Amino acid sequence: MIICKKISAVRDIVKEQRGQGRSIALVPTMGYLHEGHLTLVEEARKSGAFVVMSIFVNPLQFGPNEDFARYPRDLERDAKKAEGAGVDLIFNPEVEEMYPAKNLTHVEVDELGDSLCGASRPGHFRGVTTVVSKLFHIVQPDRAYFGQKDYQQYLIICQMVKDLNFPIEVIGVPIVREEDGLALSSRNIYLSPEQRAEALVLQRSLGEAENWFRQGERSALTIEERIKELIRNESSGEIDYVEIRSAENLHRVEQIEGKIFIALAVRFGSTRLIDNKVLEGM
Amino acid sequence: MIICKKISAVRDIVKEQRGQGRSIALVPTMGYLHEGHLTLVEEARKSGAFVVMSIFVNPLQFGPNEDFARYPRDLERDAKKAEGAGVDLIFNPEVEEMYPAKNLTHVEVDELGDSLCGASRPGHFRGVTTVVSKLFHIVQPDRAYFGQKDYQQYLIICQMVKDLNFPIEVIGVPIVREEDGLALSSRNIYLSPEQRAEALVLQRSLGEAENWFRQGERSALTIEERIKELIRNESSGEIDYVEIRSAENLHRVEQIEGKIFIALAVRFGSTRLIDNKVLEGM
Repeated sequence: MIICKKISAVRDIVKEQRGQGRSIALVPTMGYLHEGHLTLVEEARKSGAFVVMSIFVNPLQFGPNEDFARYPRDLERDAKKAEGAGVDLIFNPEVEEMYPAKNLTHVEVDELGDSLCGASRPGHFRGVTTVVSKLFHIVQPDRAYFGQKDYQQYLIICQMVKDLNFPIEVIGVPIVREEDGLALSSRNIYLSPEQRAEALVLQRSLGEAENWFRQGERSALTIEERIKELIRNESSGEIDYVEIRSAENLHRVEQIEGKIFIALAVRFGSTRLIDNKVLEGM
Repeated sequence: MIICKKISAVRDIVKEQRGQGRSIALVPTMGYLHEGHLTLVEEARKSGAFVVMSIFVNPLQFGPNEDFARYPRDLERDAKKAEGAGVDLIFNPEVEEMYPAKNLTHVEVDELGDSLCGASRPGHFRGVTTVVSKLFHIVQPDRAYFGQKDYQQYLIICQMVKDLNFPIEVIGVPIVREEDGLALSSRNIYLSPEQRAEALVLQRSLGEAENWFRQGERSALTIEERIKELIRNESSGEIDYVEIRSAENLHRVEQIEGKIFIALAVRFGSTRLIDNKVLEGM
């Protein structure tokens, strides 16, 4: 496995691989790898592609009061995990390599980025789409893999790729969870043991919501309110949002039909966790 | 020469050419070709590349009260000229091919697009950078050629390519003029014979400005004011702007030093013409 810090080095290696007839897969990450990331790598490897993983904590997608500075970083640990999973190349640039001078250009997807995490984190998705565009241009992959824990991000990237005609296939990979149900996230390490225990209410409430849905409940509002009640009753978590939205275009849903997802974001202390469940209505 | 209306057809042909070891050059245009466009093709051919010319009147870069509907279009005439100049492929999509559904994504370069033409034409450069990004992703050229009559546009595209790491070399080609000095523009056909005669004041005033500069004048404000005076005295043109700016970053200049350009936009009736001159200060 190769580790590159420089854009030009990545370009050279990718070009060489492509010259040998291999397709290129990109797994963009912010590092501090967990099984969720490694599942993306596993998917990427299925195609026989040369697998590039980017590890870059992108300042552009963090708000001024967010956790950019303390976001966990451990390249040595990540490199071991990535190599074990079959990554061929890690691209781990410094901030100066990605943003050498004042960055004036951004890529933005209207509407889709205004709600849910976009409402709580202004500028976040603009930072994501901008850095992902840069990574797409640097690596020029045939396929790129994104985890569906960030379901809104996944939809936004799909829309961007379609709208701007990126010659790239975007592949969404389902959430990976701990044995007890907590969705994997690099931010889980921020949780105290008590918060870690309380955070299980996210997955539990999504499971309950699925039960209500299976029993015939179709009112989005009713399910949203019942989830909120459950979270409030069974944890000290502070709800950021609980919303049911179309899994195609993120539009608000009143009566559940077609493919929807239930998205939630809850704070435990200063740690904000997200989770979601996709449901297919009749 | 091939004419393609479909993105998939362009992609197939470009892929085939690249497979045969040829590099790809892109000349983006809105059609109604003149010698300026053909000079871009001539430059593109020098590299031995497969030359793709896009002809697309992009609705996204026209304001609601601008000339999108009446912008001149004549594919048959353009195809003859393009073939004569050595274009290999014309990409001439319908609006629905480029914007099949609601387009939610845009690419924007901050600051550089706010002044000059951007101030008079809100959203114009955002439309340009968005469609150029799409064309870059569709054609995936090694080099792209832009006329420097739209000097601000050229700088904005350069900035975008640098900021977003497009794997593309942007080549700016100097203004091509009629024998009497009028900068070539597809919009020149809008001019009445009287306006056409009056419009020569643009090139004349830029020439005078160069003389003042050569004689030692270094105050941007003085030169700007003298150009305005000349245009007002010698034509009925309505001045939109006359400004001296850095040719590197578009910043305002007080004392001329380094590489600058004098940019002007003047309306003759409902026709807005632009012109510029690049000067290298000591």
